[in-house]
Amino acid sequence: MPSAGAHRNLEEAARAIADTGRRFYQRGWVWGTAGNFSTVLSSDPLALAITASSLHKGELQPDQVIVVDERGKPTSPGRLRPSAECLLHVRIVRDRPREAGAVLHTHSVWGTILSEHFAAKGGVELQGYEILKGLAGVSTHQRTEFVPILDNDQDMDRLQAGLGKVLARNMSSHAVLLRKHGLYTWGETLADAERHIEVLEFLFEVVGRTITMRQHEGEAIWHS
Amino acid sequence: MPSAGAHRNLEEAARAIADTGRRFYQRGWVWGTAGNFSTVLSSDPLALAITASSLHKGELQPDQVIVVDERGKPTSPGRLRPSAECLLHVRIVRDRPREAGAVLHTHSVWGTILSEHFAAKGGVELQGYEILKGLAGVSTHQRTEFVPILDNDQDMDRLQAGLGKVLARNMSSHAVLLRKHGLYTWGETLADAERHIEVLEFLFEVVGRTITMRQHEGEAIWHS
Amino acid sequence: MPSAGAHRNLEEAARAIADTGRRFYQRGWVWGTAGNFSTVLSSDPLALAITASSLHKGELQPDQVIVVDERGKPTSPGRLRPSAECLLHVRIVRDRPREAGAVLHTHSVWGTILSEHFAAKGGVELQGYEILKGLAGVSTHQRTEFVPILDNDQDMDRLQAGLGKVLARNMSSHAVLLRKHGLYTWGETLADAERHIEVLEFLFEVVGRTITMRQHEGEAIWHS
Amino acid sequence: MPSAGAHRNLEEAARAIADTGRRFYQRGWVWGTAGNFSTVLSSDPLALAITASSLHKGELQPDQVIVVDERGKPTSPGRLRPSAECLLHVRIVRDRPREAGAVLHTHSVWGTILSEHFAAKGGVELQGYEILKGLAGVSTHQRTEFVPILDNDQDMDRLQAGLGKVLARNMSSHAVLLRKHGLYTWGETLADAERHIEVLEFLFEVVGRTITMRQHEGEAIWHS
Repeated sequence: MPSAGAHRNLEEAARAIADTGRRFYQRGWVWGTAGNFSTVLSSDPLALAITASSLHKGELQPDQVIVVDERGKPTSPGRLRPSAECLLHVRIVRDRPREAGAVLHTHSVWGTILSEHFAAKGGVELQGYEILKGLAGVSTHQRTEFVPILDNDQDMDRLQAGLGKVLARNMSSHAVLLRKHGLYTWGETLADAERHIEVLEFLFEVVGRTITMRQHEGEAIWHS
Repeated sequence: MPSAGAHRNLEEAARAIADTGRRFYQRGWVWGTAGNFSTVLSSDPLALAITASSLHKGELQPDQVIVVDERGKPTSPGRLRPSAECLLHVRIVRDRPREAGAVLHTHSVWGTILSEHFAAKGGVELQGYEILKGLAGVSTHQRTEFVPILDNDQDMDRLQAGLGKVLARNMSSHAVLLRKHGLYTWGETLADAERHIEVLEFLFEVVGRTITMRQHEGEAIWHS
Repeated sequence: MPSAGAHRNLEEAARAIADTGRRFYQRGWVWGTAGNFSTVLSSDPLALAITASSLHKGELQPDQVIVVDERGKPTSPGRLRPSAECLLHVRIVRDRPREAGAVLHTHSVWGTILSEHFAAKGGVELQGYEILKGLAGVSTHQRTEFVPILDNDQDMDRLQAGLGKVLARNMSSHAVLLRKHGLYTWGETLADAERHIEVLEFLFEVVGRTITMRQHEGEAIWHS
Repeated sequence: MPSAGAHRNLEEAARAIADTGRRFYQRGWVWGTAGNFSTVLSSDPLALAITASSLHKGELQPDQVIVVDERGKPTSPGRLRPSAECLLHVRIVRDRPREAGAVLHTHSVWGTILSEHFAAKGGVELQGYEILKGLAGVSTHQRTEFVPILDNDQDMDRLQAGLGKVLARNMSSHAVLLRKHGLYTWGETLADAERHIEVLEFLFEVVGRTITMRQHEGEAIWHS
């Protein structure tokens, strides 16, 4: 029966999302109720399992994951509301149909710092690192991964339209940074998206610490 | 019966406070017996549940939380004494009656560093970050949160009087830093106050690392 | 019976490797499925127990450890493939027959940063630290440990040949850094190799932070 | 019976020491088998419970704590040997008879960095921090705690004689740093000594990060 299958899917997805939330909370990536996570249950019509708004991610419970449709509206009754940023998740899974079966959004210290530091350049370039091979479809360290930076906005219609343009202009990118806000990445499965978060957060820390260390040499590598 | 209700309130408050203590200890925010935490049990007359003096916060037990009145005096017998800083908690819950149902005080590395770095400017400005929306009543990143800095003092009467002035001059602030000492913040509930700690500690680290990274550019953003 | 003994060896080795993986994952040294670990089960002919390719190291299971021969080929059926970097493990245990009964490879933030920072000098010099006595055969802090840096390469035949040359030129070294990639170290037992990782990662962080701190003094210590 | 009492003392001391070891290992202060810990069982004649040599501190077992006399010699049979640094522990408990009922030695990243950075000045000055009140007998932040730095030496007779001179010259100090080696501190009880470690490690990180952050201002505060 389809409905039973869908229910089991939601339960499994919700448990997996709650586990991811606890891990990210322990690393300080979703403090202050920041962050939201989603996985696609079905794509046509879209049914997206997503964390409800304003929850403590270290104590996330499976029943705090709700289902929304392609307009970001909840499809079942209940007092929990989806995050306003739900529309960004919907945009990503619609614009990256083959790559995005799950979307993760985090606020990390280094991601926040780099999103401001490289804003004038339009994005962060990650180049030549072996760990880039952890991104889907990347098979060599001789890769330049560009993480575009989008200005933050409280108007969600405007922000998701801006996100659509950034996604269209950067077809080979695996993630987008919102300025002074945080990281959005995605993957075929939740595990793939979590691996992308790990790869990108690792490299954000490497780049941030490298810039800090190299100041004295007057190097222009990062600022040319 | 009111007294039974009050007892249950204290037990619940004490368990919640002990849980908060263990989390903060694991993050290195209350080392060396630093820090103290309180929640309001009743406001008129004031009954404040607060951690006793000089305890290891990683092994905090519910029976190490005591009750004090509006002068900071214990209202029940026992060998445990309240912290001298108890008066600062009392001051905050009296001066912020609607906002402060719980008060948290922590010593973090970045909070300590910024409390000295920005002392001459009178406080730390946090501006334009999405995570500021984790502070009660803030609904946009286009916000300037000012965390005033107060000189430290071992004279508690003088210090709580100084704190009162700072609170009166900064009615929209959610927290105060004591110089080379630590952070005081508050919230309607203990969970709200803990969320505020997470938001502010996250941003203190972002600001501290940003200043360190940007030295080479001779930027005056943080020192104008 | 030898085969039973070998099986027990593999089981024990696999459990120990899985434990090491979980510890390293918690420290952020093997994110994004990075890293691989091996121990020698027998040396002539070589039977090497090694983690399979592309696994999440925080949830490593003993049955994800497979056995390969001296050409890096699996010696038992199964769907798990060895990592391409398996050949580097084989090279180390063959070229360091007395010292390398186990090989560990990690990606850490500071190791990655120093592998690029000191690339032009050919390696990282670690000098005068007491903790160097944690390296096998080192009995005084008055030691200069040289960790050579090798350029990264996706051609494994070329990379393992280059590794062989680096090992031959640095007979007293306990480890090699791959540029913008990570650390390879080894030890008589897995515990010895893990101790080496801890010593070297500790010192990479000390050296990286020291360089960052000392910029202002225009010191040439690290860049002469 | 006295002997039974002594045995119970050793068992309790050994369990407490093992717990401390696990906590410090998790924080990265005793990697690579670094560090050793002791508590006084009786003072005349001296019986000192101390960790044996070269153990993994994250898996420390109570039976890895042995008893030594005033010459640092084991007083009971067994294959475990005391650390060579055992003599430094003996020196501290003999020279600080009222204050040192327990001695802790750790290797931290910031302690190691500062032990070199301030070597020419003879020690690290910690001044004006509230958390200094976590040190025994300190009741105000208006305190200058001086942590003297002693050159490292593999000759233990010479090193313990040097330590004796440093202790005699700095009667109000609570700790000593060995250069490029680590921290020795003590307290009336093991809990007091662990509190001292937390206070000092916290402040080493504050001082190290402050120096790093302030470079651009050409401040001479830390280098005058």
